[in-house]
Order: sequence, then structure tokens, then C-alpha cells
Amino acid sequence: MVIEMKYEIERAKAQQACEILKEQDIDAWLIWVRETSQMADPVLELILGGDLTWQSALIFTENEKIAIVGNFDKDGVKSKGIFDTVIPYTASIRDELIKQLSRKDPNRIAINYSVNDVAADGLTVGMHKLLLDYLKNTPFSNRLMSAEHHIQKLRGRKTTEEVSRIRMAVEIAENIFEKAKNFVKVGMTEIEIYDYFHHCMKEYDVTSAWEEEHNPAVDAGPYKQFGHAGPIENKTLAGHLLHFDFGVKYRGYCSDIQRMFFFGNKRDVPAEVQDAFETVRDGIQAAADFVRPGAVGYEVDAVARDFVKAAGYEEYQHALGHQLGRLAHDGGTLLGPKWERYGDSPMGVVEVGNVFTLEFYVTTEHYGQVSLEEDILITREGCEFLSQPQRELICIS
Amino acid sequence: MVIEMKYEIERAKAQQACEILKEQDIDAWLIWVRETSQMADPVLELILGGDLTWQSALIFTENEKIAIVGNFDKDGVKSKGIFDTVIPYTASIRDELIKQLSRKDPNRIAINYSVNDVAADGLTVGMHKLLLDYLKNTPFSNRLMSAEHHIQKLRGRKTTEEVSRIRMAVEIAENIFEKAKNFVKVGMTEIEIYDYFHHCMKEYDVTSAWEEEHNPAVDAGPYKQFGHAGPIENKTLAGHLLHFDFGVKYRGYCSDIQRMFFFGNKRDVPAEVQDAFETVRDGIQAAADFVRPGAVGYEVDAVARDFVKAAGYEEYQHALGHQLGRLAHDGGTLLGPKWERYGDSPMGVVEVGNVFTLEFYVTTEHYGQVSLEEDILITREGCEFLSQPQRELICIS
Repeated sequence: MVIEMKYEIERAKAQQACEILKEQDIDAWLIWVRETSQMADPVLELILGGDLTWQSALIFTENEKIAIVGNFDKDGVKSKGIFDTVIPYTASIRDELIKQLSRKDPNRIAINYSVNDVAADGLTVGMHKLLLDYLKNTPFSNRLMSAEHHIQKLRGRKTTEEVSRIRMAVEIAENIFEKAKNFVKVGMTEIEIYDYFHHCMKEYDVTSAWEEEHNPAVDAGPYKQFGHAGPIENKTLAGHLLHFDFGVKYRGYCSDIQRMFFFGNKRDVPAEVQDAFETVRDGIQAAADFVRPGAVGYEVDAVARDFVKAAGYEEYQHALGHQLGRLAHDGGTLLGPKWERYGDSPMGVVEVGNVFTLEFYVTTEHYGQVSLEEDILITREGCEFLSQPQRELICIS
Repeated sequence: MVIEMKYEIERAKAQQACEILKEQDIDAWLIWVRETSQMADPVLELILGGDLTWQSALIFTENEKIAIVGNFDKDGVKSKGIFDTVIPYTASIRDELIKQLSRKDPNRIAINYSVNDVAADGLTVGMHKLLLDYLKNTPFSNRLMSAEHHIQKLRGRKTTEEVSRIRMAVEIAENIFEKAKNFVKVGMTEIEIYDYFHHCMKEYDVTSAWEEEHNPAVDAGPYKQFGHAGPIENKTLAGHLLHFDFGVKYRGYCSDIQRMFFFGNKRDVPAEVQDAFETVRDGIQAAADFVRPGAVGYEVDAVARDFVKAAGYEEYQHALGHQLGRLAHDGGTLLGPKWERYGDSPMGVVEVGNVFTLEFYVTTEHYGQVSLEEDILITREGCEFLSQPQRELICIS
């Protein structure tokens, strides 16, 4: 059996998964899935890099990685070299599942559900019922717990290779913004500009970091609220702003950057626009100066939020920053306010190796919203900008 | 607000969803999701055709379609023209959810979980917990039920437009097989042939009906078990078989076809290969002759399974047929045996407008497996082949 080199990163993450178990006081992590090409547990691409068809159990313990998969999936899973033990089945997975759990006899079995974190909430209600049914009359049905914190550590602590892929995703997005500076002209529609970005993405052989329909978000002029409506036949005008929210996926890892263009010369930038821009730029910098390992999510958000309010603007209606990785919204600790819809994710702690966005908008009276977004890596001392922070409005004249 | 024409099919399915409620004795269907670009309930593309970011509730009753979504998603959802009522929120969805449920006061609320059907099992454990938490101290927490049968009817009963897209997906796959007949030569590797299919898919501007890594499955010679291992550097040889499992997605709808090539002249086909081929071909035909509205899934499977066993072969280790639609495995009634891993899906009833595959393999002594797959539409009288059934081995000399 030839081991495929291309699954190196998944092998490293699977190994990391075993190592984190102990610190979380978990004896076994059980990933319990089926037909993942239709709906995949978000952790699967992190530690498997591929799909599973029939009911499948991936079991990680401190010293062994076990895959129980349908017989047609066996060769594919084996060839990735991620698992120590690959067990195929045909009619029912039940017996092998109980056999392997009995062999390891774990006291605390973590499964993938989370009220707060979509990236750790890959188990469906039907699959959960099925698991409980298979495990009834065994001691294991009472040993299940949430893998939420385990998955958050695993996703959040980027390996060197993961960071280098994110760096590349950031660099490519920035290169495309550079090209866009020469392409974008007054009078173009949002859709024309959107199409140019996609032309460039093809050139760089990267895919979209989130749903293509609104990546990049292209928002021309004062009347379009930033959000998720995608580009429309809305024309750029002299004296107006143009906003982008753009990210690419390079070898499975994402960037996520917002930039502001202005149509006119630097001296034409209205004072209210310049003030808004500087508030966003400096608010992001203030948060970057503050963030460090051990900081709590909502504390970091509060730095920027207080900055904005002190500058006399309404506070932004979202979180300051989310983690970035396989997913553009990579789960785990959120740099956000303690709002109900964020659950307890703003209470998480920032760790070395985490990659976050820092982003927010303010609203001007006559020119719509001004918004920026940078990507940072948490270091031992604080953070490093992965993107080159936008210091001035990009003027297109 | 301009209504986008391109969501016509989603509007039709959403309307169909309201119409099926009554027959299933359901008062409201609740789709309860978040961050669907990371993990999407499989029904979402059927009735929304796009993603939702924050916690979102889509509520379908007999006479109203309601969407409660994050404020950034509001415009995008509105512009699709699917929902009668679109309600945005910022801090928490809880109040609006309870308010809208109270307004409609449904006695039976169907939510998306299913032990048996992955396509109807889109609700995660964390989101379910959150829903129960939001609904505690309301009467609604005790009114929840599975939407399994509702979703199965909705997915299974293809509209005219859905069938015409599937027809096109089948036709394009067949065109690519036609081109492959001229391209494939003795001595090529599976990977070379795989790459040619992908070149053709680009030409036709279609995507893969399942994970690209093993679509098409290309299996050369006797030693490669058909399954999910993807193409390798395995060369085709004179006197050997070549097997394909291939499907494309055309405007969101799938085809799924298996074909067998033989390297040599018709007169060179070994008797055991010819016998195996005819057994598969005729077993599929026997099932097609039998299938009709009202037939039960396992009965249809049994026709082919008994045919194979009567011909002296070992029975195939999978189901005879699955439904085809947005997904290559579209859920609902399965034409399969009553094996534990299929749950109760083989007990489902075949309906007019369903689209199924008919597929199985037999194993020869010296030439590996022989397998075919056709796509059929259930009509009032029985079924219509959407694919042109393979009647003879395709001989490449």
C-alpha cells in the first residue's frame, strides 16, 4: 500500500488530535458520520481530507487511530496513512464499533456536538440517535461528552504548514487586490469587478474562501448595506467609495480581507470619509496592539468597540474577529461581544498559533459604510499581521 | 426589490413543500440552521439555493413561507422571492422565532432529523439543543417531530423542470462516454483517462455529481475492486476490462452511470465476461420491467438479486438503486435489501416522478468485476430509461 504524500497535513492534525486528548481529559474522540459528500462534519477535512460513504467511526485515543468504514471506502482510507487500524465492514458497523470501543474501554468519549460552535457541531440528530441505539446495553452510552473544546484547540492551534498555507492565501488575495487597483475604473458595475476577481482567482488556481456568490463582496456607493447580497448592476461613481470583502482558499486554507477604494484624488476624500477610515484603521490597530495569548475573546472585541464609540460612531453589529483556517469562519474562540447569538465563544481564550481576522465598519452620514479587515497570527508576544494593513484609502482617479 | 429569475426552481420546490404538509399531517416545517457554508442541511439547496450565516429559521406552513434570518442575509433572501415574510434580526433570533411560531400556532412542527436518511438529517445535535432551549417554557418544545417523510416526498417527487435538468445531466454524461470511446486506448493509465473526463466536463461546463476524487471511478483490469479508491497509475491491457462510474451535475442536478469497456474485438470477449455482462444487463432490465408506482424498495432489489443468484453469481454487496436529484444519493426510498445499515429506507414506496439508478456488479473468476448502472424515471405505467441502457460491451481495439 503506497502512502500518499498529499495527506501529510491531515496526518499531522490527526496526530495532534491524539496529543490534545489528555489535556482535555478525554479518553477517546469518536467521529461518527455517513455519506459525507452530502453533508460533512466540518472536522472531517481537517483530519481525513476526503469523504466517507456508509456509517463510519473514526476513533482517536492517546496511542491509536482507528477507522471503521464501509468496505468500498477501506482502500481509500488506508492509502492516506492516517490510521493505525482500518477495519472494513459490509452489513452493519454495530459489532465492530462495540468491539473496538470495548478493546480501548474509554471512560470519556467525546463526540462532535456544540451549541456554540458550528465547526464543532458536526454530529446530526439522526446519527446521534443511531449511535445511542447501537450503544444501548453497553457501558459506552453513558460515557459520551461534547468534543467542543477538543476540536476548538485542534482547529485553533495551527501547525507550521497550516500557517504557511494561510500566508499564501493572504498573499494571493493581496496580489489580486494589487491587480484590481489597475483594473477598477469609474463607471464599472459591481458585477464587472466581481468577474475580474474571479478571472484572477482562476489565474492563481485558487478557489473561494466562502460561497462564491458573494466573494468578493463588491459594494459601490452609499446605498448598499454591506452584507451578503452579492454584486449587482450597481455602478461605481466619482467621489464614491468602493468596498471589498474577499478571501481565497489555497490548498484548503483561507484568507479573508476587506479593502476600501475611493474614486477620486486623495485631496478629494471628504473629511467624514477620512475620519471614518482612520477610525476603522486605528481601531483595528488598537485591537492588534492589545491581543496576546491569554486574552479573552470579548476583551479584544471591547478594545475596538470602545474605540469606535469613543470616536462618536455607532458600534458595529458583529464580532471584531473570527478564526481563519480550513474555514473562513473557523470556530473556536471568537473576538466578539457577549451577545446571545455568539453563545460562549467570546469567553474563549486566545492561544499561540491562532489565526484571527480583525474587522469592523463604521457608518458615515453621506457615503455609506467604511470597513476594513486584516488577518493576524497570534505569537508568544502578541500578534503578527499576515496581511499588510491598509493604511490609506486606495484612490482610483 | 427585483426578484431573481434564477431561483424559479427553488420557488417551485418551496411551494411544493407547503402543499405536501397536509398530506403528512404536519402544520409547520421548520428548517433550523446556521453558518451553512460550513455544513449545510441537505434540504437547503433544494428550497433556498444559497447559504445562511447566523442562526436562521425557515418556517413553511400551508399558506405562508417565513424566513427569520440575520440582518446581513435579509436582502439576499428577500431577492430570491421564495418567502412571503422575511424577518431580520441582530442580537438574538429567540424572540422572533417564538413570535412567529405563536402567530401560526402549529400543533405538529416537523424538524430535520432522520436515523435512516442522510438527506433528511440536516439538524445537528448542537442546533437541536439550542432550539429546545429557545422553546422551553413554550408549548412548541413538545410539538416537534421528524420531517423525514415530508422531505422524502419533497425530494422524491421531481417537478418537470427537475426532470429536464436530470435528463440533461444524463445526456452530457453519455456524450462524454461517446467521446471517451475514441480517446481511450490500450496502455493508458486510469489517471490519464480520468483527466480526459475532467477535460470534457470543463468543455460541457458541468461539475462532478459526487466527490471529484473518484468521479469518474476508472477501474482497469481484474485486480482493482470497484469502490472509492479513485484512479491510480494502473494501465489498461489488451484482453482486460475497463469500468467507469461517472456522473455530472448540470444546473444542480445529477446523473450517475456505470459503463464497461473491453480491450479487444467482440469475438475476443471471454465467455465468462460475456456471461457476467449479460447477467448484469438482464438483471437491470428485469428490475426495470418490474418497478412501478406502489412497488416497495426491497421488492425491486429482490428482483435483480434473485436474478443474479439464479444465474449462479454471488449477490452484490450494496443496494440495487438509489434516488437521483440534487444529490447523487438523493435519499428517500431505496431499492435495497433489508440490511441494518439501510434502516427502513428499503421499506419505502416507489412514486411517480421518482428518479432512480439501477446498478449492480457480479464478479468473474479471472477478469474482476462487471458492473453497469442506468438511470430511470418512474412513470404511471412503470419506468422510462433516462440513460440509453448499455446492451453490449464497448470494445476498444
